[in-house]
Amino acid sequence: MVEEAKVVLLGSGFSMFGMRAKIALAEKGIKYEYMEEDLANKSPLLQEMNPIHKKIPVLIHHGRPICESLIIVEYIDMVWPNNSPLLPSDPYHKAQARFWADFVDLKVYHASRRVWISKGDEQEVAKKDFLESLKQLEEFLGDKPYFGGDTFGFVDVALIPFYCWFYSYETFGNFKVEAECPKLISWAKRCMQRESVSETLADEKEVYEGILDYKDKFMLN
Amino acid sequence: MVEEAKVVLLGSGFSMFGMRAKIALAEKGIKYEYMEEDLANKSPLLQEMNPIHKKIPVLIHHGRPICESLIIVEYIDMVWPNNSPLLPSDPYHKAQARFWADFVDLKVYHASRRVWISKGDEQEVAKKDFLESLKQLEEFLGDKPYFGGDTFGFVDVALIPFYCWFYSYETFGNFKVEAECPKLISWAKRCMQRESVSETLADEKEVYEGILDYKDKFMLN
Repeated sequence: MVEEAKVVLLGSGFSMFGMRAKIALAEKGIKYEYMEEDLANKSPLLQEMNPIHKKIPVLIHHGRPICESLIIVEYIDMVWPNNSPLLPSDPYHKAQARFWADFVDLKVYHASRRVWISKGDEQEVAKKDFLESLKQLEEFLGDKPYFGGDTFGFVDVALIPFYCWFYSYETFGNFKVEAECPKLISWAKRCMQRESVSETLADEKEVYEGILDYKDKFMLN
Repeated sequence: MVEEAKVVLLGSGFSMFGMRAKIALAEKGIKYEYMEEDLANKSPLLQEMNPIHKKIPVLIHHGRPICESLIIVEYIDMVWPNNSPLLPSDPYHKAQARFWADFVDLKVYHASRRVWISKGDEQEVAKKDFLESLKQLEEFLGDKPYFGGDTFGFVDVALIPFYCWFYSYETFGNFKVEAECPKLISWAKRCMQRESVSETLADEKEVYEGILDYKDKFMLN
């Protein structure tokens, strides 16, 4: 019985998607076994648990896999609803939270990746797209402490892992997010006061070093 | 009070995403006002209701917009839970339904579009990707009548609108889905016996004509 309810998380390095699952589990106070995946040499367990995408994170609960980070966070919130509810119960606000979390995946993620992976004109377009997506988020945030209102929730979990990558985007792209989106940076600092976030997010300099290593390995530069 | 609870759907032409919302509303027996959008000349209402993506479908309920088709279907299921529940209540099966609906967006949609938009080698790759994604869905379907089991549900709503585009994919790509995925075609025919589906899906020949018109207008061909 104890064995069956074991919670395992497959994650990897500085992945913001893996961090989302870690933050949600920490918010709920769930003990789990973390297994680090080497994405250049994926484990048989990862391939068995996520045969479709073969991507991390994967949450394994009762021996069954749950894949895709936002689906994992919703699962965690459903299974352990009492501590720190992450999604509102009202259908409209729940739909709104899903919309903005999805926006992070559709817009922020892809633009942010292009900021550090590209150069020249392509990088300028990426910077513009990235900052525009953050400004849209900042507008939705408004003067609320968190995206959902007074308490830390689903959209916060979806976005905050990107914060430890900001130093890298800024360094590669030669810009400062704070100059454009001061409220968003205040929000990020507010999130960092939570143990679930501060103990999960990687050190920003280590993320930068990790990207340099990755570029050395896989790109001509 | 009656005015406030009015349900409006902004949709457009043969969009499979718009059809998802229509099917979900029909399953629930909800009366609504349908407003057809001309995507080449978007209405002020669409731009006001979905300022971020400016895309259809948008569901307007109590004067407030809900955007993104899968989020709309979940919203409809939450607000009108009694008739034809679309998502299972069990967290694991709910996560699984979300995973496969998301898979339709990530894999099936993009590959299917490339089948009719591309030519030559690129089209061959698209056909391979499209059929592979359908085979993965067919494997998940197995011998169940519907993706979620015995009743029509979330993944069925997500995928079935593509069925009225199959004739176009097959005609442009010169292949037959049924030869590769017979169980999936049986599933589609089963779904078509539902009024919610048969009255929503466009005529397959009209979809094909629509694509020819689109190609004439926007592509060199």
